[in-house]
Amino acid sequence: MSSGFSFELEACDGRTAARAGRWKTPHGGVDTPAFMPVGTQGTVRGLLPEQLRQAGAQMLLANTYHLALRPGAEVVRDLGGLHPLMDWDGPILTDSGGFQVFSLARLRRLDDEKVVFRSHIDGSLLELSPERAIRIQEDLGADCIMCLDECPPADDSRERILAAVDRTTRWARRCRDAQRRSDQALFGIVQGGIDEELRERSVQGLLPLDFPGYAVGGLSVGEAPADMYRTLEFTVPQLPADRPRYLMGVGTPTDIIESVCRGIDLFDCVMPTRNGRNAMAFTSSGPVRLRNAVHARDESPLDPCCECPACTRFSRAYLRHLFMAREMLGPILLSLHNIWFYQKLVRDIRIAVNSGTVEEFRANQLARWNGRS
Amino acid sequence: MSSGFSFELEACDGRTAARAGRWKTPHGGVDTPAFMPVGTQGTVRGLLPEQLRQAGAQMLLANTYHLALRPGAEVVRDLGGLHPLMDWDGPILTDSGGFQVFSLARLRRLDDEKVVFRSHIDGSLLELSPERAIRIQEDLGADCIMCLDECPPADDSRERILAAVDRTTRWARRCRDAQRRSDQALFGIVQGGIDEELRERSVQGLLPLDFPGYAVGGLSVGEAPADMYRTLEFTVPQLPADRPRYLMGVGTPTDIIESVCRGIDLFDCVMPTRNGRNAMAFTSSGPVRLRNAVHARDESPLDPCCECPACTRFSRAYLRHLFMAREMLGPILLSLHNIWFYQKLVRDIRIAVNSGTVEEFRANQLARWNGRS
Repeated sequence: MSSGFSFELEACDGRTAARAGRWKTPHGGVDTPAFMPVGTQGTVRGLLPEQLRQAGAQMLLANTYHLALRPGAEVVRDLGGLHPLMDWDGPILTDSGGFQVFSLARLRRLDDEKVVFRSHIDGSLLELSPERAIRIQEDLGADCIMCLDECPPADDSRERILAAVDRTTRWARRCRDAQRRSDQALFGIVQGGIDEELRERSVQGLLPLDFPGYAVGGLSVGEAPADMYRTLEFTVPQLPADRPRYLMGVGTPTDIIESVCRGIDLFDCVMPTRNGRNAMAFTSSGPVRLRNAVHARDESPLDPCCECPACTRFSRAYLRHLFMAREMLGPILLSLHNIWFYQKLVRDIRIAVNSGTVEEFRANQLARWNGRS
Repeated sequence: MSSGFSFELEACDGRTAARAGRWKTPHGGVDTPAFMPVGTQGTVRGLLPEQLRQAGAQMLLANTYHLALRPGAEVVRDLGGLHPLMDWDGPILTDSGGFQVFSLARLRRLDDEKVVFRSHIDGSLLELSPERAIRIQEDLGADCIMCLDECPPADDSRERILAAVDRTTRWARRCRDAQRRSDQALFGIVQGGIDEELRERSVQGLLPLDFPGYAVGGLSVGEAPADMYRTLEFTVPQLPADRPRYLMGVGTPTDIIESVCRGIDLFDCVMPTRNGRNAMAFTSSGPVRLRNAVHARDESPLDPCCECPACTRFSRAYLRHLFMAREMLGPILLSLHNIWFYQKLVRDIRIAVNSGTVEEFRANQLARWNGRS
């Protein structure tokens, strides 16, 4: 299974668990640590594929739940899959749809066989099972696909988190057995909340299934950052060193640095695009809120350290004007800037890992952002 | 006045009044007939300047009324004017603001001195006079600026249209006298509805003021297309042949061909961008409504004759999906396509004028669109 993939570590930091590597996929290589912009409905909101490339993005994420509802997995399959549909010839990752079923849809029934839910779009009754999640993801045709998992809220009882861990393990086996395409890497997902014993139980359940990569799920779902970092500290070392490790849905720039230092290779998050649409920019000196009146006559660039189109061609005053006037170009430019910021961040971390200076890089960045990113 | 401008006719059609020319401005040349995309608030909705350039646009229009209200003419002036603000180094035209005052704002008082109105944004009481319209446009810094005119609705009484003509003439003199910058071409605006006598009266009032170009206003405000074409037939021949002629706010692709054949050189219209945002595309075989279910699984390009990013990289099925999913990229791509369509249209007309085949071009196009564009 999963031919056309290889993962090579280039450097491992001596003082932290940070690593730099290169992950080859059927649609090209990904330098890790890597950040995947999120194209929920088969488009990173407001941006063309060439703009993502120019920003340095190598791999995108698309959401199975949304695409299965609209336009439908079979439609995407009949149109040749996600790559030609989106005009993105680089690697793509899809999630299993489970997270959105549990967070967005109206749940009707959950048992070991499957989850039954109502579409958040038209209320129609739908179901998702491990086999169906794989089938849909094979239709969508991403390079990297995910096992269906159960992701309980951070404040759920230990008993329920334990049950979710065991169901996630049983579902992972069924997903692996359901896989028919050999050109997709299927990742197992570790659950277990912030409980050391449950995370170990989850890892131990998944390891015999020998996945080509492992995702850490169930984090950044309401717990404190310190709890997330601690959980990574006792979870990640149990994962095979020679496979990519993906922290799902995380996070702030600080989260990304801290998680790389704890051994994570892959990230995705809606934050750069969602915050960008809301006039919030990540910059080298911390977040900037463009709607603030202080920018009304400011001729200076958003971030003098950034080479993106928003920073090299326009002033803060103009960017603010676009938001005040509710012009589409505001969300477009700030989404683009934030993607550039995230891509530069992971590139810089990678350079720091390769040069053995990741501790210094972390300290410098956190000091510059002053706890605000 | 107006140094840095020249207008050279390259070809005049023998059978129609169509002409091809080149208009030089302080920010570069414009091949005429030309179409100016509309950037109402200092941005063509959803598009970057480089995307407009790639589409073939040479000159943009921005709206004085909107920019004077937000971010304010003095703010634009202090930021260096519209060109650096928008990052557009080609020519720009601003209207006088009058049209929006009469159509968008809540009018409070109109007399010969000025018009007093309430902002449609915050209800604040503002006023516009010929002198103020010029002052604002000098602050905005476009290459081509417009006299303040009074544009009555198409169904107004002859008496009121006559009064508007005479006021427009008096205001044109005051605008000319108020002009201080020598690097802006100030155009007079012909009014007079669809009445031959009133149009002649308007032209005769303006000609002694010796403007470097003339706009035809008060058309496409509710009258039938045939009335507009007839009005152009008796108005345009009275304008000096050696100056550019601008038909304000027009129109459909058919309107543009028909108006070029009646001697018009310059156009602007929100139609390509506004219709694009609403999933309506102009194509070589007539308009296409992308929300139509017939496109749901259509792998073919929107317009096989078009070389724009939407047509060369994406399928109709994907473009439709973007609109059904309310994704920003839909309005972006269709606005871009429609701008490409309009730019190709005026380029093709220009080629036809230069080769003496504009009659054939008109007949072919109208047959292809079958009265639908």
